[in-house]
Amino acid sequence: MRLYDMKAAPNPRRVRFFLAEKGLEIPREEVDIPSGANLAPQFLAINPRGVLPTLVLDDGTVIDESVAICRYVEGIRPEPNLMGCDPLEQAIIEMWQRRMEFDGMMGIAMAFRNAAPAFARRASPGTLPPAAQVPELVERGLAQARHWLERLEARLAESPYVAGPRFTIADITAFVSIDFAKWVGLRLGEDSRATRAWYEGVKARPGASA
Amino acid sequence: MRLYDMKAAPNPRRVRFFLAEKGLEIPREEVDIPSGANLAPQFLAINPRGVLPTLVLDDGTVIDESVAICRYVEGIRPEPNLMGCDPLEQAIIEMWQRRMEFDGMMGIAMAFRNAAPAFARRASPGTLPPAAQVPELVERGLAQARHWLERLEARLAESPYVAGPRFTIADITAFVSIDFAKWVGLRLGEDSRATRAWYEGVKARPGASA
Repeated sequence: MRLYDMKAAPNPRRVRFFLAEKGLEIPREEVDIPSGANLAPQFLAINPRGVLPTLVLDDGTVIDESVAICRYVEGIRPEPNLMGCDPLEQAIIEMWQRRMEFDGMMGIAMAFRNAAPAFARRASPGTLPPAAQVPELVERGLAQARHWLERLEARLAESPYVAGPRFTIADITAFVSIDFAKWVGLRLGEDSRATRAWYEGVKARPGASA
Repeated sequence: MRLYDMKAAPNPRRVRFFLAEKGLEIPREEVDIPSGANLAPQFLAINPRGVLPTLVLDDGTVIDESVAICRYVEGIRPEPNLMGCDPLEQAIIEMWQRRMEFDGMMGIAMAFRNAAPAFARRASPGTLPPAAQVPELVERGLAQARHWLERLEARLAESPYVAGPRFTIADITAFVSIDFAKWVGLRLGEDSRATRAWYEGVKARPGASA
């Protein structure tokens, strides 16, 4: 297996965190998104969609989409379980994972990609059609991310982890998104007590620095 | 169980299609998004996030997010399998499902919600902060959806179904998205031969009219 990766980017970080929790090491190759290396012929020959992370299996099978890669890893290395042990738990974890992804990470990405100079003419990821940045989306994305952080605080005030009593993939998405939010100037406030306590706990895990 | 539903909306339709393929009937309650019924106190008391579909189990557990609901249904009614039988197949299906969702459905939703009069002040779904429509996003969304249709045609020219040799949740997302695309004036062209043939096959399934 080989993981096409970018050390600083949030989506690849989710997968590295997940792999570290599983105790798995996979050879990695760095592909730099801001300079456009993910859209260069060399990488498009591997994944024509031009997105990271991309996992290539030994038989050449290509898997992109962070959560799909995690799903594969969960299947081949079931312990510790990060995606649910029975239908109900699997659904609850998937629900929370998607809430973190759609309300949180995507809001932050909206603010980031519509402002960062490197993405001036490619506000959409990968090989989606070139899109000019739209300044209104910076504020829309920030408002969405702030709202997500409020909801997250309410959730973590009542639950030890995002999806329930134990650490799961939903915590990984939330944690990585909180660090990603710093790129657009958003930080946890003093009143985010439950989130800050949870954040420190997750940060102490080996996967947090993977 | 009870499914909070909206007959015309694409996300609830994905879940109804999935349920029909499983041969499951669940009592449904209609909630009208354009008139704002999903944001009324009555529905927010059920799901504070204000999104559809929402599944409520007999013990009161709430599951939103279409794919999370499908994951639960897949677990309690495994046959016919729609989300994969082993780790690799599960990952491949999830990858394709997400490609259809992110590149296709979300592009169409971007074009739709930034243009439809009913969403003039709520271009973001559910209880996300009120967002004014951004006209540039109509063209961005349409360009993304067109690009997705080109990619889908290439895929279906080489594969009987979106994720491989058999019908899966990825086909449901793609099929529902193609019908959703009509809302923004996009239709399959004459040259989309493989997609049209696949579409007719999927349309003949009982779930297509669910």
